[in-house]
Amino acid sequence: MSVIDDLTTELSRLPGIGRKTAQRLTYHLLRQPAAQSRRLAEALVALTERVHPCTRCHNLTETPLCALCTDPRRDGTLVCVVEEASDIASIERAGEFRGRYHVLGGRLSPLDGVGPDDLAIASLLARVAAEGIGEVILATNPSLEGEATALYVQRQLTAQPVRVTRIARGLPVGGDLEYADGVTIAQAIAARRDM
Amino acid sequence: MSVIDDLTTELSRLPGIGRKTAQRLTYHLLRQPAAQSRRLAEALVALTERVHPCTRCHNLTETPLCALCTDPRRDGTLVCVVEEASDIASIERAGEFRGRYHVLGGRLSPLDGVGPDDLAIASLLARVAAEGIGEVILATNPSLEGEATALYVQRQLTAQPVRVTRIARGLPVGGDLEYADGVTIAQAIAARRDM
Repeated sequence: MSVIDDLTTELSRLPGIGRKTAQRLTYHLLRQPAAQSRRLAEALVALTERVHPCTRCHNLTETPLCALCTDPRRDGTLVCVVEEASDIASIERAGEFRGRYHVLGGRLSPLDGVGPDDLAIASLLARVAAEGIGEVILATNPSLEGEATALYVQRQLTAQPVRVTRIARGLPVGGDLEYADGVTIAQAIAARRDM
Repeated sequence: MSVIDDLTTELSRLPGIGRKTAQRLTYHLLRQPAAQSRRLAEALVALTERVHPCTRCHNLTETPLCALCTDPRRDGTLVCVVEEASDIASIERAGEFRGRYHVLGGRLSPLDGVGPDDLAIASLLARVAAEGIGEVILATNPSLEGEATALYVQRQLTAQPVRVTRIARGLPVGGDLEYADGVTIAQAIAARRDM
């Protein structure tokens, strides 16, 4: 196996990148200055060596506590619960939310053997009790498992004096009724608001 | 800048990979065993350190002569001329051609300042004279520049006792070898014409 084949194979392990695309990327890199491939390699190594979960919210970070947990301008009484650390990046891109986060590390999925003990639910309950959190926003995905996970977490929190909310479901902004699925339209109608 | 941002930035430099896809790939790698990122990093470093052009045909290789130039089962009297080393992989995938190759390193393109002296044409003429080559197949892309390049090379070879052929226009005009399927490439080679 040549190193060209090696790199093509490694690139084709990535999601959404097939054999042909991987080969195209490899030859693209061969046409670029070697520094570009080296920077990519260094970023990959740094990723494996330096990134780990935040000890408080389980966001991915290079420091013991992540930048969101230590930022004094974030509202510590408002916590947004997400399935994966990558969901934080999506919500931060929206630029609307100014609270903190809690990453569950997945969703309840009995078929895949993922139960409550496999998710960071106990640490969420402990945070709510210890940090004076006033509202928990459940932002798990609007999928079957995401809904079940939100419901489970909500029930665990009923004993504590905290408001528990769920992100709204509806038509995506800029979306089109014609392309929306029936369940989404039904929920968008059920969750209609006065204007 | 975090290393997550670093890797996302480096990945988004690759062709066809936007910011969002790059972020998805980064978080995918974070969910995989660290060994996968390390193997990818090692393949990238090996690529920059070990790959260079074959001294004879300019194919990319890790040895002085490439595997195709040293393979005794390949027909040394038949040479296929391509623009880029990546085109060799495309033709080899088709599995039809059993001769050797010559990589020009580009195509004639006056607008981009690429003239005959910028391509490996002189070394092709020297090979034809020295290696007893009986047929040169011009497999430059069926684009305007590729056709002009084929025509130029063919004219340079008229003085030598060698058959010069052009791959058939089974490939869509304006297309690119890199994206062609193996059957199309195989048919284009089988239906090559004298120039």
